[in-house]
Amino acid sequence: MPLSEFALIERYFRHRGMARADVILGVGDDAALLQPPANVELVATTDTLVAGVHFPDGSPPASIGHRALAVNLSDLAAMGAQPAWALLALTLPEADESWLSEFAAGFGSLAQAHGVALVGGDTTRGPLCVTVELLGHVPRGCALTRGGGATGDALFVSGTPGDAAAGLALEQGKLSAPAEARAYLRERFLRPTPRVALGQSLRGCASACIDVSDGLLGDAGKLAAASQAGVELVFSDLPVSQPLLAALGEQRARELALTGGDDYELCFAVRAQDIARLNATLPPSQWGYTRIGSLRTAPGAVVLRDDGSVMEFSHSGYQHFA
Amino acid sequence: MPLSEFALIERYFRHRGMARADVILGVGDDAALLQPPANVELVATTDTLVAGVHFPDGSPPASIGHRALAVNLSDLAAMGAQPAWALLALTLPEADESWLSEFAAGFGSLAQAHGVALVGGDTTRGPLCVTVELLGHVPRGCALTRGGGATGDALFVSGTPGDAAAGLALEQGKLSAPAEARAYLRERFLRPTPRVALGQSLRGCASACIDVSDGLLGDAGKLAAASQAGVELVFSDLPVSQPLLAALGEQRARELALTGGDDYELCFAVRAQDIARLNATLPPSQWGYTRIGSLRTAPGAVVLRDDGSVMEFSHSGYQHFA
Repeated sequence: MPLSEFALIERYFRHRGMARADVILGVGDDAALLQPPANVELVATTDTLVAGVHFPDGSPPASIGHRALAVNLSDLAAMGAQPAWALLALTLPEADESWLSEFAAGFGSLAQAHGVALVGGDTTRGPLCVTVELLGHVPRGCALTRGGGATGDALFVSGTPGDAAAGLALEQGKLSAPAEARAYLRERFLRPTPRVALGQSLRGCASACIDVSDGLLGDAGKLAAASQAGVELVFSDLPVSQPLLAALGEQRARELALTGGDDYELCFAVRAQDIARLNATLPPSQWGYTRIGSLRTAPGAVVLRDDGSVMEFSHSGYQHFA
Repeated sequence: MPLSEFALIERYFRHRGMARADVILGVGDDAALLQPPANVELVATTDTLVAGVHFPDGSPPASIGHRALAVNLSDLAAMGAQPAWALLALTLPEADESWLSEFAAGFGSLAQAHGVALVGGDTTRGPLCVTVELLGHVPRGCALTRGGGATGDALFVSGTPGDAAAGLALEQGKLSAPAEARAYLRERFLRPTPRVALGQSLRGCASACIDVSDGLLGDAGKLAAASQAGVELVFSDLPVSQPLLAALGEQRARELALTGGDDYELCFAVRAQDIARLNATLPPSQWGYTRIGSLRTAPGAVVLRDDGSVMEFSHSGYQHFA
């Protein structure tokens, strides 16, 4: 039985996410009223997930809800920001209550985990499409940006990129893998972990930061370009997970770590003189990041073999399993 | 020739809207950085337009760009807020450059007119769908809400509701009208005027406010319900435009003023003791609003004839010309 827009909002979204004292007026009026703290800059981002483009048709609704928020949390993480308030624009072909209930649960538990209040939104009828707008804040002048890097900075990445692209390929039946690896990799696609705490902890330590959503090689290249530099990655230094190795072998696993999308890890630059402090404050074993290369003078992004020779790559992670 | 997402953003959206000194970092990083003024509350809203649902397929792209921002400006107007920053999530079936150029022009000129900077967004491939998120601010404690009204308050509406619904019906070939009326009414649908200045001027004067997007009768009912009251409208007091009268005659014009959607006018309540000040500060002839009824004790929304008898209405403005 179709529900009216109003009933939909009431039933599934009014009390999702965190209750926050700085929400003066949430869902239910023409707009939300929010009280930002003093001495901050606001941080605002939006990302859309389209059915059949950003997730396979028939994806678990809880995963769609999780990912719609996670991709935005990842953008705020890359700025070193504290997330606070979300708006949800949900376009649905029909008001399927079990779909909505699972979607709201996936969205809601990630929102709770990061202290995010759902303060407004819009539900419309049409082809399945989810847009989340996320607002947060950062102490004035302390945001991480893509453009703060300089030649000589060391470059790091969190987690083990490539996992999500392999998970998507498994979802799509384009890849096979042992059962255990399969479960892990699918989970990395369906429920990525935005590195919000890492991003905030990198303030004052990293010189530049970007989230790895379109593939590490391309995104590291964007950070470098914004920093008026180029980037040099070392192939054998690229971190890859055991499940990815089990599924693809070492060479293909590292290639996918470079070009696969949907990881939502952070790639960040650190001045040479700040590396010791980084390692002391945020022990790599605890925070899960790895040095993968450096910013260099020559523009563009290159990947080096152990013998110093340059590897050739195209950026098209999506076509890996076509 | 298809453009990459990056090129699209660069070419059509980077410099759209107003340049604002409070935009520390706009389009081009993982998120935007914004500097809110001191002593304000943030006001945040989002609305989506879906092709074939919120506008007919083949609508002029400039109108889609205008309306996508206008519907959000209208939400901020209803809160008495000053708009500042917009994010645009644009899902497109293809990167048609002439479509994009016209869309961006429609969006951009309305943004300029209201001092709104476009600070970020996301472009994705998929069925045509436009979501705008608009942020603004209001002096602390001064926002208008739906819930501030009380029994006995006078109820007003800006402009001449019903025009946009007639314009849409003309667009869809479901209504005919004399040429002059036709041009006016189509324009009211294609390029509605959000009442941003009126909303701000009503702060401290109106007790409650809502924007009329789903039909005056229904939206006035929502304001009344949020104010723990009912609403009584006087049929013969409903303002209707000359072109609407020319197209529909008096009875049907007033019916459409009650139930038609897409007007983006403001409906607001004013305490009896504040009406003289309202009329003095904001002369109705200059600001274009009309008293249409009152809030009353009994819940629900009713419309009275001149003889005091109650008219029956369904809310389904969309089915008027089916």
